[in-house]
Amino acid sequence: MGYRVAVVGATGAVGREMLKILAEQEFPVKTIAALASSRSVGREISFGDAVVKVANLETFDFSGWDIALFSPGASVSARYAPIAAKAGCVVIDNTSYFRMDPDVPLVVPEVNPESLKQMKRRIIANPNCSTIQMVVALKPLHDLFVLKRVVVATYQAVSGAGKQGMDELFTQTRGSFVHDPPQVECFQKQIAFNCIPQIDRFMEDGSTKEEWKMQVETRKILDPNVQVFATCVRVPVFIGHSEAVVAEFAKPVDLKKAREALRQAPGVILFDRNEDGGYITPIDCVGENASYVSRLRIDPTVPHGLAFWCVSDNLRKGAALNAVQIAEKMKDLGLLSQ
Amino acid sequence: MGYRVAVVGATGAVGREMLKILAEQEFPVKTIAALASSRSVGREISFGDAVVKVANLETFDFSGWDIALFSPGASVSARYAPIAAKAGCVVIDNTSYFRMDPDVPLVVPEVNPESLKQMKRRIIANPNCSTIQMVVALKPLHDLFVLKRVVVATYQAVSGAGKQGMDELFTQTRGSFVHDPPQVECFQKQIAFNCIPQIDRFMEDGSTKEEWKMQVETRKILDPNVQVFATCVRVPVFIGHSEAVVAEFAKPVDLKKAREALRQAPGVILFDRNEDGGYITPIDCVGENASYVSRLRIDPTVPHGLAFWCVSDNLRKGAALNAVQIAEKMKDLGLLSQ
Repeated sequence: MGYRVAVVGATGAVGREMLKILAEQEFPVKTIAALASSRSVGREISFGDAVVKVANLETFDFSGWDIALFSPGASVSARYAPIAAKAGCVVIDNTSYFRMDPDVPLVVPEVNPESLKQMKRRIIANPNCSTIQMVVALKPLHDLFVLKRVVVATYQAVSGAGKQGMDELFTQTRGSFVHDPPQVECFQKQIAFNCIPQIDRFMEDGSTKEEWKMQVETRKILDPNVQVFATCVRVPVFIGHSEAVVAEFAKPVDLKKAREALRQAPGVILFDRNEDGGYITPIDCVGENASYVSRLRIDPTVPHGLAFWCVSDNLRKGAALNAVQIAEKMKDLGLLSQ
Repeated sequence: MGYRVAVVGATGAVGREMLKILAEQEFPVKTIAALASSRSVGREISFGDAVVKVANLETFDFSGWDIALFSPGASVSARYAPIAAKAGCVVIDNTSYFRMDPDVPLVVPEVNPESLKQMKRRIIANPNCSTIQMVVALKPLHDLFVLKRVVVATYQAVSGAGKQGMDELFTQTRGSFVHDPPQVECFQKQIAFNCIPQIDRFMEDGSTKEEWKMQVETRKILDPNVQVFATCVRVPVFIGHSEAVVAEFAKPVDLKKAREALRQAPGVILFDRNEDGGYITPIDCVGENASYVSRLRIDPTVPHGLAFWCVSDNLRKGAALNAVQIAEKMKDLGLLSQ
C-alpha cells in the first residue's frame, strides 16, 4: 500500500525538506526516488531512517510513478514536468514556471483545495513562499470581511534563494569578522548586515517579479478581485519569511471576530500578546508548519483596515510542506490513482 | 567668532556623530564641551583634530553657552534640557521627551524650518530617525500632489538603540559561529539573523510607541491632515534605516514630475535604476547625509498611489546631522544670539 513518489531537485534546500516532510508526515510512500542533475548522481541523502542514492533526472523513466514533487529551477521544471506528467505521474511543481497557466491549479490546501479538481495537464503548481503564508492568514479574514486590498512589505530569508543563498550569508558574515571583502554572487549586493529591496528580476513597471507574483498568485488562489501591492525585500535571516501586512476589507472589521477566526483557521497559529516579545519572529518559526500571525491591530487610517505580522518557515509551509499537503489533499479527494 | 556648543550624551553613538559632524560641517564652534554622566567623566573623545575631555553633565553650568545638542536618554533630557534652556542656552534635543510639546518646535530643516520661529521654551526637538528620512522624501511629493495617507514598513538598524544595540548584534552574530547561546539584553529577542517587529514599548491599541511616533511626528512636521500607518521592525543591520513607503495623494500622480521634484529636493538623492542593484541599501548609505529614494513606482491598486524605498544613515540625517542642521538654520534665520 502506498505511492511511488519521486522528488526532483532532491539535493536542494527545498528538495531535502520535501524528503524530510514526506518521512515525518506519514504520507503513504511505497517507493521513493531522489532525482537531480547528472552532477549529483550517486550522492546519498537521507529519507527518514533510510538512505537514498540520487538518480539522474535526465534519464529517469517516470512511467509507473504516481507523484513527482518538483523543486529544481524553473527551466528544469519547464522541460521535465511535462515529461513526467505524460508518463502518467501527477506533478506538484514548486517553481514559478506553470503557476499562471490557466490549466494548472495553483493550490494552498487550506485556501482553495477545490481547484485541484480543475487539473487538466496532470500538473499542480505550488505557489511562491511569500504568497502561501500570506493567503493562509488572509483566508479566514476574507471569509469574514471580504478582502479588497493588501499592502505588504516582506522580510525574506536567504534560503528562499536556496542553499547558495544561505552559504552566501554565512560566508559574508563570517568574512566580516576577519575583514574579508564580501563576495557577491547569489544576491545583487552584500546581504550580510544589509537589506536588499530586490527579489527576482525587475519588470517594466518598476516592480520586481517577486512582487508581481504576490499579486497575481494571491488573485488566482484567493479571489480575482483582491488588489495586492507588495514590496519584497531580502534580509540577513537564514530561514523564515516575515511580512508586514496591511489589509482593507469591504465590510466593517471586528477585531474579536478576526482573532476567533484566526484561532480556528487551519494552518494558522495566532500568537499575539500586547507585550515585549509577544509575537513570533523568524527564528521562532524554523521547523514549524504554521503561518504565524502576530501584532493583529486595526488600521484606523482607512475604513475597515486591519494589519498583522505574519511569519512562516519558507522552506516548509512556503515550499516543501505545502507541496506534500497538496499530495495529501489529492489523496483525500480521490484524485490520485493507486 | 563662533558659538559655544555643548554636546550632551557625548559618549553615545549619536553624541560622537554630533561631534564628528560639528567638526566636518564647519559650523562655527568657538568652544566645545562634551558632557555625559559622572561615570564617563575624564574620558577623552575626538573633535576634529582635537581631543576633548568629557565633563560632568550633573554639575555643568550652562550659563554663557549658546547651543546644547542633547542626545542622552529621554529622562536625562527631561531633567537637564530645561536647566540649560533657563541658563540662556538653545537646546536641540534628540530624545523623544519634548517632541509633542506644543511649545517645542519639531524640526526637519528641509521640511518645516519656519516653525523654528515658534520656539517658546528655548528648546527645539529633533524628530525620530525613522520619521526624518521619510518626511524629507515625502515633502517634495506632498508639495506636488498633496499627501493623504502613508503605509510604511521599516527595516531599522540596531544603532537606533545606541552602542549597546550594535554590541548586541555583533556579539550574538560572532557567538553563532562558535555556538555560544545568544544573550538577549538590549532587544526583546535574538536580533542576529532575525527580525523583531517591536521598537520601543507597546501601546494600548496594539501599536508600538515607535509606530505612534512616526504618525504623530509626521503630522506635526509635514501636515496635520496626513494619515500614517507604520509597522516598525528591527533588522540585523548595524547602520542605515530602510523604509518601504506606500503613499496615497489627493491629486493625480505624475511619475516624471515626482522624479524631477525628488531630484531637486534638498536632502534627497534619487538613485533609481530599473535594473539589478539599481537602488540604495543600508550599507551604501553609511556616513552619507541624504535621504536616498529608490524604487519609485506607481501603486496602481489605489487612486493616486506612489511607492518608494527610502534609506538613510540613522545616526546622521536620522539624528546628529539633523540636529546640527537645525543649529545652522537657526543661525541663518538669526535665531541664535552670538
